[in-house]
Amino acid sequence: MSVEKLQITLSEFKKAKPDVDHLEFGTQFTDHMFVMDYSSETGWHDARIVPYQPITLDPACMVFHYGQTVFEGLKAYLTADGEVLLFRPEKNMARLNQSNERLCIPPVNEEFVIYALKRLIQIDREWIPAKEEMSLYIRPFVISTEPYLGVAPSKHFKLIIIMSPVGSYYKSGVNPVKILVENDYVRAVAGGTGTAKTGGNYAASLKAQEVAAAKGYSQVLWLDGIEKNYIEEVGSMNIFFIIDGEAVTPALNGSILEGVTRNSVIQLLKHWDIPVSERRISIKEIFELHEEGKVTEAFGTGTAAVISPVGELNWKDKTIVLNGGKTGEISQKLYTTITGIQKGSLPDVLEWTQKADEGLLVK
Amino acid sequence: MSVEKLQITLSEFKKAKPDVDHLEFGTQFTDHMFVMDYSSETGWHDARIVPYQPITLDPACMVFHYGQTVFEGLKAYLTADGEVLLFRPEKNMARLNQSNERLCIPPVNEEFVIYALKRLIQIDREWIPAKEEMSLYIRPFVISTEPYLGVAPSKHFKLIIIMSPVGSYYKSGVNPVKILVENDYVRAVAGGTGTAKTGGNYAASLKAQEVAAAKGYSQVLWLDGIEKNYIEEVGSMNIFFIIDGEAVTPALNGSILEGVTRNSVIQLLKHWDIPVSERRISIKEIFELHEEGKVTEAFGTGTAAVISPVGELNWKDKTIVLNGGKTGEISQKLYTTITGIQKGSLPDVLEWTQKADEGLLVK
Ligand SMILES: Cc1ncc(COP(=O)(O)O)c(C=O)c1O
Ligand SMILES: Cc1ncc(COP(=O)(O)O)c(C=O)c1O
Repeated sequence: MSVEKLQITLSEFKKAKPDVDHLEFGTQFTDHMFVMDYSSETGWHDARIVPYQPITLDPACMVFHYGQTVFEGLKAYLTADGEVLLFRPEKNMARLNQSNERLCIPPVNEEFVIYALKRLIQIDREWIPAKEEMSLYIRPFVISTEPYLGVAPSKHFKLIIIMSPVGSYYKSGVNPVKILVENDYVRAVAGGTGTAKTGGNYAASLKAQEVAAAKGYSQVLWLDGIEKNYIEEVGSMNIFFIIDGEAVTPALNGSILEGVTRNSVIQLLKHWDIPVSERRISIKEIFELHEEGKVTEAFGTGTAAVISPVGELNWKDKTIVLNGGKTGEISQKLYTTITGIQKGSLPDVLEWTQKADEGLLVK
Repeated sequence: MSVEKLQITLSEFKKAKPDVDHLEFGTQFTDHMFVMDYSSETGWHDARIVPYQPITLDPACMVFHYGQTVFEGLKAYLTADGEVLLFRPEKNMARLNQSNERLCIPPVNEEFVIYALKRLIQIDREWIPAKEEMSLYIRPFVISTEPYLGVAPSKHFKLIIIMSPVGSYYKSGVNPVKILVENDYVRAVAGGTGTAKTGGNYAASLKAQEVAAAKGYSQVLWLDGIEKNYIEEVGSMNIFFIIDGEAVTPALNGSILEGVTRNSVIQLLKHWDIPVSERRISIKEIFELHEEGKVTEAFGTGTAAVISPVGELNWKDKTIVLNGGKTGEISQKLYTTITGIQKGSLPDVLEWTQKADEGLLVK
């Protein structure tokens, strides 16, 4: 699909912008959205930017019944110079197509969707909060829209992008979280959908999150579904441990999501000459190594929090406290560096950011 | 919620009924639908029967992102006397609430929903095809409707019931199917959502179905996700084997769906003094016992086909043919008996059916 094919209908009025000091994640949305339709006869077509508006669907549409959906999550940042930066959007688009492949959803033209996204950001640019650590959260998602109750891949889809201004994740500096290791519920196994960003994985996780929250833990650490022994990932983050000076993170084993932040952290650590090992890690090993004083830090990585230090880990009623419950040195340095690159205040040493108005026909 | 609380708005016009000789499953829907809303403040409320119509939702609604949905499937049948029968609807409503529990969806009042369903059927009664082996397929489903991108249980839901006339599953008598044993993809593991009727399970199954179809198999047989050795269930059916005169079916192990038909088949077999064993069965065992001539029949059980004899089973490029690829005696007897009870042409020995106008205030 060529870029000329993007139809734009501007909203006749603009919504009031939210108070940036009281932003709540994912509740307020910008004035416009991007929509593109797919049908098996014509492929992806009718790409358009339109006023943010409800979707009207037949109650038989497959998305309501068989969960054939995928989504992505990334952010746009406003620099001190008034430039808008996107952080590795090509990674998110590549992952969108990987998720599509697993869910029998036809691939999208990644470059075109990035182009459309940049155009959307340009139009709703005023919605990007200027303040430190704030950003515009971007949510591309695909839903299956054929009104048919047979269990089969849909012949119709919609790709939609909506955007929501988000405040800083940490109210008063980076703050370690308490995490509960999950022993009953399972998020995914190899051969399942764990490597895809699809609704069912998140639906499956709600129950365990509820139990963890009731016990005072903010997140769940998933173990493998087979032996309930190997560490997989946290709610919506990948996880790293600093063991004896080496950064260790679970290998991409076919059931965990490959985070863009995970990849960035690995690259950055290597750039700093800190050894990184992607391998199997058992929860038992972590508890034993901790006893020996070898686990000096642990942190989650994800688009929302960027780096989320783990202060406490509870497994089968045993608790370990990491780095005295405080943010570790490496966690802090990663956080400062990545958010600095995202905000354009630190040099983009690994060439991760793209200017949101780069490649646009209309400036 | 009391029955008086059911608001009814009749459609101003009636759609043309489809040609019953060319019914396609799940594509045409009756004139009305049932809708009920949930909010965390007021609970389930605003129960109503309205003209069949599209749903309008904010694009941020959780159902589009996190797969927090459940559904059910059951049928209404027209007897030769013009009576409408429901087959064990209380079982489907109980399972709906079990699925709800796993997916963090608030429970519904099962009796009230059955009442509302009966009222809906009464209104759209003309849509039930009269012909032998035809029926009205009923699809209750719950979707999460809060417009919020946080990963958390939704505070708003909709329960909707839509109905679709369906033709006979078998065009010319009960027909055995060819089934491919799946070795790569996994449907569910204990601790996951396999026991719930939720969209994500079906989304996860699409890829394997696609591969199987390309190889000429109509369905996939799922093995356990851990050892890829134990038999779980078929696409949308449970499975039984007749081994040495005994009916064997996988035990409810925490990852398979408890089918209403499975339960009915077990009861009926016991009623006929055929021994039934619910246990672990490995695929290896089936292939070995088949070699010894001990596996005389295999069949799937589910609402759609009722009984679906397995003619051929392929596992790792080895094929076994069951009962010469023909419908076995027990399969046929189960099919005839259950469909006879459903249609009211055979005595309802186990008291499974409910008259659809029973308990209604308006006759
Ligand atoms: C299950 C899961 N794991 C990991 C991540 C981290 O991925 P990323 O760094 O791309 O945000 C996310 C969030 O996107 C997630 O949902
Ligand atoms: C995964 C799965 N297993 C088994 C069944 C059979 O259940 P029932 O007999 O209640 O239709 C179904 C269909 O409903 C199903 O979707």
